[in-house]
Amino acid sequence: MFSHIKDLQFEAKPDGPDAAFARRLQEVLGGKWGEMTVATQYLFQGWSCRLPGKYKDLLLDVGTEEVGHVEMICTMIARLLDSAPLSVQEAAAEDNPMLAAIYAGSNPAHFIHAGSGPLPADSNGVPWNGAFITASGNLLADFHLNVTAEAQGRLQVARLFNMTDDPGVKKMLRFLLARDTMHQNMWLAAIEQLKEDGLEEMPVPEAFPDAEQENAFAYQYIDFSEGQEAAEGRWASGPSPDGKGEFSYQAQPTAHAGEPVLPAGDPRLYGTPPPAGSSGAGKKKK
Amino acid sequence: MFSHIKDLQFEAKPDGPDAAFARRLQEVLGGKWGEMTVATQYLFQGWSCRLPGKYKDLLLDVGTEEVGHVEMICTMIARLLDSAPLSVQEAAAEDNPMLAAIYAGSNPAHFIHAGSGPLPADSNGVPWNGAFITASGNLLADFHLNVTAEAQGRLQVARLFNMTDDPGVKKMLRFLLARDTMHQNMWLAAIEQLKEDGLEEMPVPEAFPDAEQENAFAYQYIDFSEGQEAAEGRWASGPSPDGKGEFSYQAQPTAHAGEPVLPAGDPRLYGTPPPAGSSGAGKKKK
Amino acid sequence: MFSHIKDLQFEAKPDGPDAAFARRLQEVLGGKWGEMTVATQYLFQGWSCRLPGKYKDLLLDVGTEEVGHVEMICTMIARLLDSAPLSVQEAAAEDNPMLAAIYAGSNPAHFIHAGSGPLPADSNGVPWNGAFITASGNLLADFHLNVTAEAQGRLQVARLFNMTDDPGVKKMLRFLLARDTMHQNMWLAAIEQLKEDGLEEMPVPEAFPDAEQENAFAYQYIDFSEGQEAAEGRWASGPSPDGKGEFSYQAQPTAHAGEPVLPAGDPRLYGTPPPAGSSGAGKKKK
Amino acid sequence: MFSHIKDLQFEAKPDGPDAAFARRLQEVLGGKWGEMTVATQYLFQGWSCRLPGKYKDLLLDVGTEEVGHVEMICTMIARLLDSAPLSVQEAAAEDNPMLAAIYAGSNPAHFIHAGSGPLPADSNGVPWNGAFITASGNLLADFHLNVTAEAQGRLQVARLFNMTDDPGVKKMLRFLLARDTMHQNMWLAAIEQLKEDGLEEMPVPEAFPDAEQENAFAYQYIDFSEGQEAAEGRWASGPSPDGKGEFSYQAQPTAHAGEPVLPAGDPRLYGTPPPAGSSGAGKKKK
Amino acid sequence: MFSHIKDLQFEAKPDGPDAAFARRLQEVLGGKWGEMTVATQYLFQGWSCRLPGKYKDLLLDVGTEEVGHVEMICTMIARLLDSAPLSVQEAAAEDNPMLAAIYAGSNPAHFIHAGSGPLPADSNGVPWNGAFITASGNLLADFHLNVTAEAQGRLQVARLFNMTDDPGVKKMLRFLLARDTMHQNMWLAAIEQLKEDGLEEMPVPEAFPDAEQENAFAYQYIDFSEGQEAAEGRWASGPSPDGKGEFSYQAQPTAHAGEPVLPAGDPRLYGTPPPAGSSGAGKKKK
Amino acid sequence: MFSHIKDLQFEAKPDGPDAAFARRLQEVLGGKWGEMTVATQYLFQGWSCRLPGKYKDLLLDVGTEEVGHVEMICTMIARLLDSAPLSVQEAAAEDNPMLAAIYAGSNPAHFIHAGSGPLPADSNGVPWNGAFITASGNLLADFHLNVTAEAQGRLQVARLFNMTDDPGVKKMLRFLLARDTMHQNMWLAAIEQLKEDGLEEMPVPEAFPDAEQENAFAYQYIDFSEGQEAAEGRWASGPSPDGKGEFSYQAQPTAHAGEPVLPAGDPRLYGTPPPAGSSGAGKKKK
Repeated sequence: MFSHIKDLQFEAKPDGPDAAFARRLQEVLGGKWGEMTVATQYLFQGWSCRLPGKYKDLLLDVGTEEVGHVEMICTMIARLLDSAPLSVQEAAAEDNPMLAAIYAGSNPAHFIHAGSGPLPADSNGVPWNGAFITASGNLLADFHLNVTAEAQGRLQVARLFNMTDDPGVKKMLRFLLARDTMHQNMWLAAIEQLKEDGLEEMPVPEAFPDAEQENAFAYQYIDFSEGQEAAEGRWASGPSPDGKGEFSYQAQPTAHAGEPVLPAGDPRLYGTPPPAGSSGAGKKKK
Repeated sequence: MFSHIKDLQFEAKPDGPDAAFARRLQEVLGGKWGEMTVATQYLFQGWSCRLPGKYKDLLLDVGTEEVGHVEMICTMIARLLDSAPLSVQEAAAEDNPMLAAIYAGSNPAHFIHAGSGPLPADSNGVPWNGAFITASGNLLADFHLNVTAEAQGRLQVARLFNMTDDPGVKKMLRFLLARDTMHQNMWLAAIEQLKEDGLEEMPVPEAFPDAEQENAFAYQYIDFSEGQEAAEGRWASGPSPDGKGEFSYQAQPTAHAGEPVLPAGDPRLYGTPPPAGSSGAGKKKK
Repeated sequence: MFSHIKDLQFEAKPDGPDAAFARRLQEVLGGKWGEMTVATQYLFQGWSCRLPGKYKDLLLDVGTEEVGHVEMICTMIARLLDSAPLSVQEAAAEDNPMLAAIYAGSNPAHFIHAGSGPLPADSNGVPWNGAFITASGNLLADFHLNVTAEAQGRLQVARLFNMTDDPGVKKMLRFLLARDTMHQNMWLAAIEQLKEDGLEEMPVPEAFPDAEQENAFAYQYIDFSEGQEAAEGRWASGPSPDGKGEFSYQAQPTAHAGEPVLPAGDPRLYGTPPPAGSSGAGKKKK
Repeated sequence: MFSHIKDLQFEAKPDGPDAAFARRLQEVLGGKWGEMTVATQYLFQGWSCRLPGKYKDLLLDVGTEEVGHVEMICTMIARLLDSAPLSVQEAAAEDNPMLAAIYAGSNPAHFIHAGSGPLPADSNGVPWNGAFITASGNLLADFHLNVTAEAQGRLQVARLFNMTDDPGVKKMLRFLLARDTMHQNMWLAAIEQLKEDGLEEMPVPEAFPDAEQENAFAYQYIDFSEGQEAAEGRWASGPSPDGKGEFSYQAQPTAHAGEPVLPAGDPRLYGTPPPAGSSGAGKKKK
Repeated sequence: MFSHIKDLQFEAKPDGPDAAFARRLQEVLGGKWGEMTVATQYLFQGWSCRLPGKYKDLLLDVGTEEVGHVEMICTMIARLLDSAPLSVQEAAAEDNPMLAAIYAGSNPAHFIHAGSGPLPADSNGVPWNGAFITASGNLLADFHLNVTAEAQGRLQVARLFNMTDDPGVKKMLRFLLARDTMHQNMWLAAIEQLKEDGLEEMPVPEAFPDAEQENAFAYQYIDFSEGQEAAEGRWASGPSPDGKGEFSYQAQPTAHAGEPVLPAGDPRLYGTPPPAGSSGAGKKKK
Repeated sequence: MFSHIKDLQFEAKPDGPDAAFARRLQEVLGGKWGEMTVATQYLFQGWSCRLPGKYKDLLLDVGTEEVGHVEMICTMIARLLDSAPLSVQEAAAEDNPMLAAIYAGSNPAHFIHAGSGPLPADSNGVPWNGAFITASGNLLADFHLNVTAEAQGRLQVARLFNMTDDPGVKKMLRFLLARDTMHQNMWLAAIEQLKEDGLEEMPVPEAFPDAEQENAFAYQYIDFSEGQEAAEGRWASGPSPDGKGEFSYQAQPTAHAGEPVLPAGDPRLYGTPPPAGSSGAGKKKK
């Protein structure tokens, strides 16, 4: 069960409006790697977690914090949208190229649909969707995704930091960058912890019996593209990171099965079937 | 530029049809973590890669291999779809509960839309989409995503392995499990390599200046959910995995900003504004 | 800022598993009118609200409660998914038609993707998306949507109540039905309150000047479909609910503008233009 | 069955082109609350209506009118798209900031995909989709949605009215504003009529037996967010609008169920299970 | 402007209910090639048509007919959904395998969301969307798409014909098959007419100047896949169907450009750049 | 199985950057009719093809070529994105209207998400999705779609040719135009070949028995829109293109079935049912 206080975790106040930047900031609100994604992802992982104790607690703690980040960015966007030019005439009225760029570079739905408020959508106005998140039930697989989410998220915030001069915006981004630093470290530490606790190892899922996979292909690098620079990498020779194998390198791909020939389909589905005889001239219909 | 041979990388032939399993197998073809995702993701990462040499080569090699995996699974699905019951009458005609389960558990579009062929969609028939992939331009962020993709992918293949008795299907899954083992290891090795080459470190992006983030929050675990089991984890004390900080633990969240109050919006957008006076009885319209 | 306790607002425990019902229950979790929708919608409306005080408080109160309902349904779904048959063989093994129906009627992604956990998706596995919610900035427009959301939501829960015999599931649904009763009443009361406070009236937006619309069409019922039963309704005569007009009835539609003829387009876009002369034989290309 | 005449219901002719406004106008064509939504929604509600007579007639009448509004807006957009600059060079050629704003603020797909024609998409080019509409079979639930759709729609048209100076565009918008006024009133009247006819009451669905819901929670306002301004509202005390209860106010949320603990999942799905013993050190794999 | 009569163009009445077939029939209502697609596509093409006269008339005629087909299929689906089992218990109650198959093979949203009515969605419940249609402004390109739409549509209806024994359903499908026969012929005839009228020729767009394309590649078949069976086809030698060239056959693809090397990106975007020196050991950060 | 060489099929190098054009070029990469669509469509058609020999070879040849076109356009977009202004301040800093137009007309996700790389999305940033492609199993239906895809694709490339002055971009577009010319011709030739080989005829599917359709409607043009210009076309009289019928013209539509009346629904779904008696005053609830 959740509760809410009206104060924000950190300040979310621009020094001035900029509707074009508001559109861009939507990427870290409702884009694939935005705060809606991490909030929802960690909560679903927590609610699905069949392992009570510190891991479940961790997921619910951080998921709850992220809902507060959604709140901060929503607040910031609402404030950035003030005083925007509404029409092309208005945008061009003063001899101010910035005004025209803001008009043309903004998201029309911010005004028409949301009346100067945030949208659960990315920087192009494409709605957030549930396929952005994964809660697989396997914590090691999911913690790797969580590292990724924080890495991609911090990368995007860092890029946004270079897309504005506004001190108030930058102040909030500095806070988000720091939390993303913490969260990247936290999920990396959680991966270590899972291994220390003996719960899971690479490759995921550890519990799948080794004997059941085609082990001849389990540590072999196969080169499908001309040029052999890839052979120089850590991944083409030496011990594998999972500690269970030795990388080998194959310079050319080998096909292990012949050309597939499909049988004629069910005639009631009216696909084009192989012709009756050996020529290509058969008739399917009498 | 690409070329193709008709042989398959590995055999993709079931011992018998099972349209309900064909629907399930779609998850690793056109689902979020399926072969279409990894094929497209590695190729886009390769095409965007601004660093010539072994990394770019690696991405294009493996992306090309994955297109061949798409081909194998498509072939398997086409074969699994043979001989399916087409109507509820047919499904119930013989006293065979398996037939009824296959009819009802299959994807109707496999027959109506694709005429017994595969679809670029997941196990519920939801189409694959471009938001499933990321090519961010930052190799460390992307290699972490690639580890995740292979971990989630192998997890799903391992689950599918337990959802069928068909020896031919299991044979192909054994191969895919082995390649996913290789690819998890490979991306982990590539992460090591990036660090060895001095190109990137955690947290991503390393190049963002430390001094520009709010460092007070960069290594602090904040507990937003009742219960303090999370304090026992590696993420709440000790050195951080990036080697740059020391984790601390805060048992209660602190708000660092007051309640946000938004100004009245542009009246031309007809939002409900704060009332004119102090009561709640203002009129927006004269 | 949000915080969380581990206890649930209300019990969410089935007496037994039923993966086919779990699929159905997803509709009120991640469907258009599910708990993810109301939670997100009320919070976004609250964060965008430019009117401090009781309305903003109301939106954030109830939005926060709804996040806890998301949590309850997620928990229920995870429990309903236990012990499901994984393959068609397993489904048909015992002579138990219920098992076959559960296998075939369940959502494969619950197992392959989520490992027996909930998904942010509807009863067909289509992901929740941000277009499901609206926060327009105009409270009267949004409160009408909120009444609708609670009405559609309660309707769906009532239908689900008739789709299971499980006492534990029914217990949770009884609670949700009661909260939906409260919330329908609450948004209706909020509509009354907005009017009492003099903030908004019908038609929305009240502040748009009456003189600016084509008033001849503002209270006229026009009959576009054969049959005049519609003339018997409250909407075809008598005073209009907004208290500003009198309904009239027009038995046949009238066209107020001639057939539109579009000019030839820009030839650089290669649309098929009107032929050069009056015959139909013009050539666009020399 | 439908028929068509070439004349338009009302004039749809701008005084001049403006491709940036054409992009914005798409919101009320193919956005969530646009004319495609209301046309399709009313027709599906009509076709599903199991109650012959005035209600079914009403739905089919108005749905048919709305298809004609789709036609008008399509025509307007095609005309607004004429004479647009096609390249950045063209946009910047004359010293005309309006031209640059039009180029940059327009939707590229209007030209590349549609050759200067309308698209079934919103103001950001996101395609209209079927999840925008609901036809639930319960008329009271749906009529509330219809009021909402007309309120949100009129709000958006009123905002667009302030986003252009073009007299021809404003003329058409004046007509749409008037029809939205009519339609808001009409659905409100239809709600009254349903109640007068004794067919449905609040809360929806009335037919669900009161005794089957947890009545203790059916009229209770629960405050989940700090600050008690919400207690001042109509929704926290006094009789409920459905006439069946009395609102009460609870200042703090209460949890009615303990922390949920999920059982270990099916090992064949390879989730991370609770460790074997009481420490955190169990091994899932032998 | 449109008007409606209550009678249907053709009968749409099943002899009995079958909710599993109702789910399948959705494919030709709200799937990619269903009636919603052709109705909307022809109307948008008509409204965008800048060529007054018989072509515009044709598009609006047929688009209007198709709205009536949407109505027929909606009616049929509503009737097929009657008497469906609502729960797994109900499905298994009688010893009737058909009932279990119908329960498990049906679309849950038909009942939970639509209360036994049709949905604007495909046979998997994925919503119809605007990207299914194209109105390009070029009639020849669009008429080819229209032939396709009718061919794919008739193919799907023919398959559905083999998925039911119900005489009433088959009667309606027989009508739709006939109209699809007419419409395939009609668009083929319209292609002939366009050419006769001298308005457009292949390749589309004819008006693009021949001299502006790389003509060396305009009639050359290039073989990218092992095996040369393709060389036997009409497309590898002889005159081209547009009457403007002669096909040639190239047995191996040739690359006409070297390996692309991208410059280092803007450092403010934090992509992984080429290392400073020639080794792989550069540091991006000081 | 696929392999890759590093060289490109044709040069993909602009003379200078233009991020606004890069956004537009996305349409032919990840839009409905872009290279991702044709590549995936032909490969899926090939993998599903149950007819070994020249047709399957053709599909796999050309699908493989198209993957190389995806590569070329990705490369071009990455290069066009260099040196773009990142903020509105930067865009307005120099007195350069082109810079402002580029900033405002570009896709923010190109920088924030992709770090100056291509996206699998259209010109509005809407992700590519699997519903864009069809592989129906019926080659004639699919070859007609393939003609369409190449016609729409060439039309879009021709439009883009007029949206830039950059010689390097135009050079690549000239190549794509030529290949689209080839591919339009090739699919037209493949249609001829299918007929010559006696495999399929119009209408699709030929194998559906003529006697099973309502032949009275199979060659009849019905006029649903006022105005009879359509009667002048090839489609309203004379022999039908399939050589099996004679077109007729009906000036007014006829309804062949009465008004549909649906029975009351299952009361457990709480739809609004017909009232109990003949008045409109029935009560559903006791």
